[in-house]
Amino acid sequence: MANANVNCWPVVVIGGSSDQSQETTGAFQEFPQVEATRLYSKFSARPSSLAAIPSVIEKAVRTSMYGRPGACYVDIPGDMVNAKVDQSQVRQVTCCPVPPVSLAPPTDVLKAVALIKQAQRPLLIVGKGAAYGRAESELIELVERCGLPFLATPMGKGVVSDVHSNSVSAARSRALLHADVVVLLGARLNWMLHFGFPPRFNPHVKIIQVDLCAEELGNNVRPAVALLGDIRSVVRQMLDIFQKDPWSYPADSEWWKALREKMAANAEMSKALASAPSPMLNYYSAFQHISQLLPPDCVLVSEGANTMDVGRTMILNRLPRHRLDAGTFGTMGVGLGFAIAAAMLERSKSAPQRVVCVEGDSAFGFSGMEVETMCRYKLPVVIIVINNNGIYSGVDAETWAELEKMDDLATIAPPVTLLPDARYDQMMTAFGGHGFLVRTAAELRLSLQESLSDWQLPSLINVLIDPASDRKQQEFPWLTRSNL
Amino acid sequence: MANANVNCWPVVVIGGSSDQSQETTGAFQEFPQVEATRLYSKFSARPSSLAAIPSVIEKAVRTSMYGRPGACYVDIPGDMVNAKVDQSQVRQVTCCPVPPVSLAPPTDVLKAVALIKQAQRPLLIVGKGAAYGRAESELIELVERCGLPFLATPMGKGVVSDVHSNSVSAARSRALLHADVVVLLGARLNWMLHFGFPPRFNPHVKIIQVDLCAEELGNNVRPAVALLGDIRSVVRQMLDIFQKDPWSYPADSEWWKALREKMAANAEMSKALASAPSPMLNYYSAFQHISQLLPPDCVLVSEGANTMDVGRTMILNRLPRHRLDAGTFGTMGVGLGFAIAAAMLERSKSAPQRVVCVEGDSAFGFSGMEVETMCRYKLPVVIIVINNNGIYSGVDAETWAELEKMDDLATIAPPVTLLPDARYDQMMTAFGGHGFLVRTAAELRLSLQESLSDWQLPSLINVLIDPASDRKQQEFPWLTRSNL
Amino acid sequence: MANANVNCWPVVVIGGSSDQSQETTGAFQEFPQVEATRLYSKFSARPSSLAAIPSVIEKAVRTSMYGRPGACYVDIPGDMVNAKVDQSQVRQVTCCPVPPVSLAPPTDVLKAVALIKQAQRPLLIVGKGAAYGRAESELIELVERCGLPFLATPMGKGVVSDVHSNSVSAARSRALLHADVVVLLGARLNWMLHFGFPPRFNPHVKIIQVDLCAEELGNNVRPAVALLGDIRSVVRQMLDIFQKDPWSYPADSEWWKALREKMAANAEMSKALASAPSPMLNYYSAFQHISQLLPPDCVLVSEGANTMDVGRTMILNRLPRHRLDAGTFGTMGVGLGFAIAAAMLERSKSAPQRVVCVEGDSAFGFSGMEVETMCRYKLPVVIIVINNNGIYSGVDAETWAELEKMDDLATIAPPVTLLPDARYDQMMTAFGGHGFLVRTAAELRLSLQESLSDWQLPSLINVLIDPASDRKQQEFPWLTRSNL
Amino acid sequence: MANANVNCWPVVVIGGSSDQSQETTGAFQEFPQVEATRLYSKFSARPSSLAAIPSVIEKAVRTSMYGRPGACYVDIPGDMVNAKVDQSQVRQVTCCPVPPVSLAPPTDVLKAVALIKQAQRPLLIVGKGAAYGRAESELIELVERCGLPFLATPMGKGVVSDVHSNSVSAARSRALLHADVVVLLGARLNWMLHFGFPPRFNPHVKIIQVDLCAEELGNNVRPAVALLGDIRSVVRQMLDIFQKDPWSYPADSEWWKALREKMAANAEMSKALASAPSPMLNYYSAFQHISQLLPPDCVLVSEGANTMDVGRTMILNRLPRHRLDAGTFGTMGVGLGFAIAAAMLERSKSAPQRVVCVEGDSAFGFSGMEVETMCRYKLPVVIIVINNNGIYSGVDAETWAELEKMDDLATIAPPVTLLPDARYDQMMTAFGGHGFLVRTAAELRLSLQESLSDWQLPSLINVLIDPASDRKQQEFPWLTRSNL
Repeated sequence: MANANVNCWPVVVIGGSSDQSQETTGAFQEFPQVEATRLYSKFSARPSSLAAIPSVIEKAVRTSMYGRPGACYVDIPGDMVNAKVDQSQVRQVTCCPVPPVSLAPPTDVLKAVALIKQAQRPLLIVGKGAAYGRAESELIELVERCGLPFLATPMGKGVVSDVHSNSVSAARSRALLHADVVVLLGARLNWMLHFGFPPRFNPHVKIIQVDLCAEELGNNVRPAVALLGDIRSVVRQMLDIFQKDPWSYPADSEWWKALREKMAANAEMSKALASAPSPMLNYYSAFQHISQLLPPDCVLVSEGANTMDVGRTMILNRLPRHRLDAGTFGTMGVGLGFAIAAAMLERSKSAPQRVVCVEGDSAFGFSGMEVETMCRYKLPVVIIVINNNGIYSGVDAETWAELEKMDDLATIAPPVTLLPDARYDQMMTAFGGHGFLVRTAAELRLSLQESLSDWQLPSLINVLIDPASDRKQQEFPWLTRSNL
Repeated sequence: MANANVNCWPVVVIGGSSDQSQETTGAFQEFPQVEATRLYSKFSARPSSLAAIPSVIEKAVRTSMYGRPGACYVDIPGDMVNAKVDQSQVRQVTCCPVPPVSLAPPTDVLKAVALIKQAQRPLLIVGKGAAYGRAESELIELVERCGLPFLATPMGKGVVSDVHSNSVSAARSRALLHADVVVLLGARLNWMLHFGFPPRFNPHVKIIQVDLCAEELGNNVRPAVALLGDIRSVVRQMLDIFQKDPWSYPADSEWWKALREKMAANAEMSKALASAPSPMLNYYSAFQHISQLLPPDCVLVSEGANTMDVGRTMILNRLPRHRLDAGTFGTMGVGLGFAIAAAMLERSKSAPQRVVCVEGDSAFGFSGMEVETMCRYKLPVVIIVINNNGIYSGVDAETWAELEKMDDLATIAPPVTLLPDARYDQMMTAFGGHGFLVRTAAELRLSLQESLSDWQLPSLINVLIDPASDRKQQEFPWLTRSNL
Repeated sequence: MANANVNCWPVVVIGGSSDQSQETTGAFQEFPQVEATRLYSKFSARPSSLAAIPSVIEKAVRTSMYGRPGACYVDIPGDMVNAKVDQSQVRQVTCCPVPPVSLAPPTDVLKAVALIKQAQRPLLIVGKGAAYGRAESELIELVERCGLPFLATPMGKGVVSDVHSNSVSAARSRALLHADVVVLLGARLNWMLHFGFPPRFNPHVKIIQVDLCAEELGNNVRPAVALLGDIRSVVRQMLDIFQKDPWSYPADSEWWKALREKMAANAEMSKALASAPSPMLNYYSAFQHISQLLPPDCVLVSEGANTMDVGRTMILNRLPRHRLDAGTFGTMGVGLGFAIAAAMLERSKSAPQRVVCVEGDSAFGFSGMEVETMCRYKLPVVIIVINNNGIYSGVDAETWAELEKMDDLATIAPPVTLLPDARYDQMMTAFGGHGFLVRTAAELRLSLQESLSDWQLPSLINVLIDPASDRKQQEFPWLTRSNL
Repeated sequence: MANANVNCWPVVVIGGSSDQSQETTGAFQEFPQVEATRLYSKFSARPSSLAAIPSVIEKAVRTSMYGRPGACYVDIPGDMVNAKVDQSQVRQVTCCPVPPVSLAPPTDVLKAVALIKQAQRPLLIVGKGAAYGRAESELIELVERCGLPFLATPMGKGVVSDVHSNSVSAARSRALLHADVVVLLGARLNWMLHFGFPPRFNPHVKIIQVDLCAEELGNNVRPAVALLGDIRSVVRQMLDIFQKDPWSYPADSEWWKALREKMAANAEMSKALASAPSPMLNYYSAFQHISQLLPPDCVLVSEGANTMDVGRTMILNRLPRHRLDAGTFGTMGVGLGFAIAAAMLERSKSAPQRVVCVEGDSAFGFSGMEVETMCRYKLPVVIIVINNNGIYSGVDAETWAELEKMDDLATIAPPVTLLPDARYDQMMTAFGGHGFLVRTAAELRLSLQESLSDWQLPSLINVLIDPASDRKQQEFPWLTRSNL
């Protein structure tokens, strides 16, 4: 039911369950599924007759897309699957139009603009709501017209390109800490943004919150200006004002200077890490090579612990809605399913783009079996497994061999340790795809180029990195426990 | 936390439950209350520490008011009630601002206006969303500037006065059936509006749906134009267009003629019913007298079966948010609680208005005991019980005496029959309020005048009407089973 | 579906809700009722067809009675109420047999008996499970054959008569505190028994726990012997052993002496309170007179704060299942509904017994309106309202008059204060029953005798007691916060 | 917490979730997990303090094991994981004793015995309740002493050995259809037993139902005798009667004759299928060889569609609790997790037994990735994948190649088709275990022998069978839609 104009795709899960006629008797897979999915879905229903199915599906699809998007669930009793109904008994429904949008009140937009103009240290934060809301043209225009620094949340990356010169991702912590006016565009002040609380945020920060969900406004921090509406439309409202009365944040401000200094320092540090003399790859060197070779328009799927975290800074997104990662819930195991869905969608396009899946070894383990599906449907996904033998950090093969000599492996092996040097690549070859085991930069580059050149089959590049490789030291770790 | 500018009042229920320290041991009233209230509330939580209470309450209050309003629940463990916490450990929160509003896109508003202008048989439907959204000035202006007929839903009554000459409530069924363009303003196409389906609606009706809840748009019927936004703001957007390019629906149209004819016929019928020669009162005669005497600015609470239904047409509302009735869920027993809350609020005002509660005898029975509360707090509520000895229709005292002679009263008494001529008035005198038993129009008028003259004590007027009294015949009954 | 042999009556609530064909459209009272009742019921279902109703009802009835009894819920869609189905499509079901019972393993019963024999300070606690399980003959035999002291929980009262000489209710706290072996018969170690924890229980107490619910065994305290089975059957197993090898706990033990001393002291104190020289009645004097006049076989319903608590000790139960009170959940407002149900059941018997309802004034206020139902069905319930103008303690009329002079009654009136000297009796006369206002012992006795002499109509005796009347000082208050 | 005497092992899932101090702020993985697991667990809780953890865990463990066993869930807030508490504040708890058991009333046992003696066509059905209840000795004695035919449910297999001469599994449908007295031992009359309804059961069958769960008694069919109690104890009660008054069902009865005839015919048919002249293996030939080589005491895990169904009849269990399959819910993907748990338990024993996992290719795909875990912990599980390229039936490689030539594989490939000849064995070698690809009986036998000889590493035998191989024709398919 998707079409080129829609802001998002409906997410409706259709479940099958026991026959309606066998309810309460202990039927096969009898379970109150609608009730069980209540907490996970915006709308959940089980049609009570065949005739009711079309309108229930319409409502599920529409509810999934309208307002804040979310999943819906429809449970079809087993005995309806092959049943028939006289068409005259069915109320006709048509596919719903694209989601309605709304605008913020002009006076509030004026207030927001005034606040931005007064800011000493302004910062835009671009969330996934901006991506869902297709606000990219407007946001690029805002960034460029006004010369503002911006940060993206993980799923907001690419709305404005990560390589845009106004992106301050490389100085994320500093930007959050010192900004005095933050324009929050479809991002939640949840754990991913440290709740908007000190010590990660300036206690006096003024927040301009733009969101289509009224109940989100004011969560955790009371905004200076709350703009309820569609992000694309609201940013257009701002731009109309800036167009009539042009204004630009000075490029030579102390704030830009401080941000650029920090970015340079961080870039230096990443570069140092990426070019460490060790013969083994580490996160930074691996990602450096990967990011150099990935097509700029590829759809990037990513999950893992360090892999996702470091990858968020090292692998850049140039296009909106081209990054799928574990998101707000941080659920591991979603990556390969995301990649399959993305590849199916790309296949349906005239100019399909690459789907590349950068996985931590632990994350891959949650649903690695899906390589069979990729091979079966010949989906040319490129999977890169960053393999450090563990979660956060691993153990090398020799240490592991020592451990194994001890009495009870189950007791001794650290709980976050995985099998050393596991041959994930052979899982792919087992089902007919390409598999590569790489240990060096050269091998990595070669195998990635080869993988990208084949549009018929999936590939898996198993990148053995130094098990002791770690992220660079953070001023604040990513998932800081808040200090309320 | 209410203030004069807010659109609505937060509804947050604070529950008390078992001590946190006794969870899972079988504590006094231990129960998963947060879970139990999930289906009934927009937000439901149990603070895990004293320090968390202010932010949880703030979130509950805000969530209750922002977006589509609704109840929230906060559960306070018993052992927190008298506990203390160092203030420095508590994150400070401030009362949330008034709810944010949004506007519809100008192009869509233009489309809506164009559609209204093309309508042969236009109709505005004013729902409770318009009342919550305080859209009264704008709607009166729209009705008058454009000369449009309008209907109100039960809780939408009074946004534009029921006595306004453009109100077509007295021709409700005809208006719904023949309208070709309906502007739906904060009303849902649920059972109260017959789902928007034929045969109660024209199958080709074009609907302009105005709502602040995106997920409501398109429910049951696909709208011709969907305007997502605050009703007040969206109507103001329409008015701006009508102001620049004035237009008015012709007062001499066939549609107005047909509506006025039906209204006159219905008024005639009501008048005939109200002035039936019988010595006993009936619904129509009772309501005629009541409506003549009620202060135009009184807060009217109402519940019951026929009492609420007939009362909706016979007792007119001139002001918005001055009618509280059983609403969408049709829950009986809410009336006296509503009246107490309204009277407490009025008492806090410099110019309090009267609270009048028109109750069916059955509805009164759900929470009649609350008269004690009214007496205790000296709330000058006027309760009028329309007493027909039953639900929908009752049995007179003589028939009842016959029934009683039979063997088993429990078996024989019709399930919807109440005690004949019950002295509800004596319940009020039992607690010190005024009680009146009335059987004639003169008694009814006298007692109501007397009740309204006392601002110190509540009154209850027990109006004995003909148990056989019924509503007039409907083209369609109110609660029609839809014919899908 | 009850019959004389069943251990309990099924509790199945049949709800009506929206039409199946209107699901998801916003139907009248559409709500996921089955889901909403899940937490409150053992089984909850909505039949998906007319043909499914009999088997769903059968399962609900059976589930309600089998195992630990509990309520079940069946939701009937509105469009099934008057629908028809071909009988041949309906699977025939018959009413389920009486609940199955089970026995404890003989070796465990032997262990329990051995432990009882070794006890220095034994105590039986008779819970409502013993009442539901109809274990009265067996328990009387156990108490008498072995000369053991016993206590009853509120709903376990009367399984062995409260006037039995082995009842140590009057020394409840001491008995719980010092017992070294407790035989727990169908009672939970929840808040009502202070969780079985010190300081209310001996930390070294050995518990013999008899229950039909395996999951109850070991809750809070690990039992010395756990006997899973039907209480009646398990006690019979114990008796068989005591019959073969007779044993009796010495009547002249220190334990009996200590208990009897405490009971005498408490009786003295109650007697003193009951015969206080004040002209006004208090809890103790009122209950003394009431208990003297009540028929020994009456069904006693009770709820309230002090009223229920003091009443539990002062009003004695001689028969099992003849006491209905607020029970484990302590829910107020259940009393009049209980009384109506009990009176309907008694009416169906050849030798009906009296239903007497002893209510606190606050508790009565939750559902006092039900007096209309009693009058309508001529149910000869005797309601006694113990009226102290408040919850726990009230305010007298003069103090109240002082309070009223102050500015804002709503602020000043203590939250647990009710209207002084409310004429609850007039609520009963309003509907044709008998009403009495009593202030003295003589008035109380006379009105109660008169009420009990009429089997045609309900009565309400409004007993004005001293608002300052309170319970006697407790070593431990009833609802002690546990000191974990 | 398991010990050698317990009837079952507790199943308690410990979840970790968001910090207690961050509730309602949008914390990392904040979700109402206790509420979400309510429908799936017997007990679900989140301790509100560190001090509460031991008693909550104790309650979860105990609840999981007592009564009908089931899973429990305990959610530990993230901020408790490394927190500390003064031990004096923690209530000490000890590990709960083995589950309590109960017996049926002797008179009911006598009735059951009398009914068995009168039976013309008796049948025992042994369910998983008999396995959990460790009733094997008693049931073997019952079968042998009385000469009764028996059937096992999938998880009840092995309580009495499948190779026992009284097992009538090979005539399952006939046995169910004609039995006039069925003794149901810890098995539910749910879909797995066709609800006990005709046409799969004799409409006049008399059922003796033995279960420890009172609410299970009478589900779907009203039993002739309901015996509430522990199966082991209840069967012992029966045996005591049969011992005193010996009785045996005649081995030369018509019933035995009919059953043995059907068994012989079915055995013949299986043998024919197993020795089909085709060069390719099919289900029957593969299972014949497997069953010949498996150690009689191995723990057998199985899941799949045909694989599990045919395997249930072809692979025999000689010991109780040595078979783990998808069970009542028929959930695919549980097999490898079961195998890992079983192998960990076996490793802890002095004489560990083999764990063998017979998987359909589709079922393996749900959690095949777990081979990495097996390799990491060196768990010597033997996995046999019965690979027919599909669910129920597959497509051979040539047909698949044809399909691939068509335009859109996603549209054309049948939804239940898997990748042809997938090399699941290479998944195992990828992680260091043994992998075998087999196409012939000889290869299968050799590889299985080799796998069984290594106790250090897991193996995976990928058995390519004829994609067109199917189960033999059934009188009734396994999962018949009931004909109510």
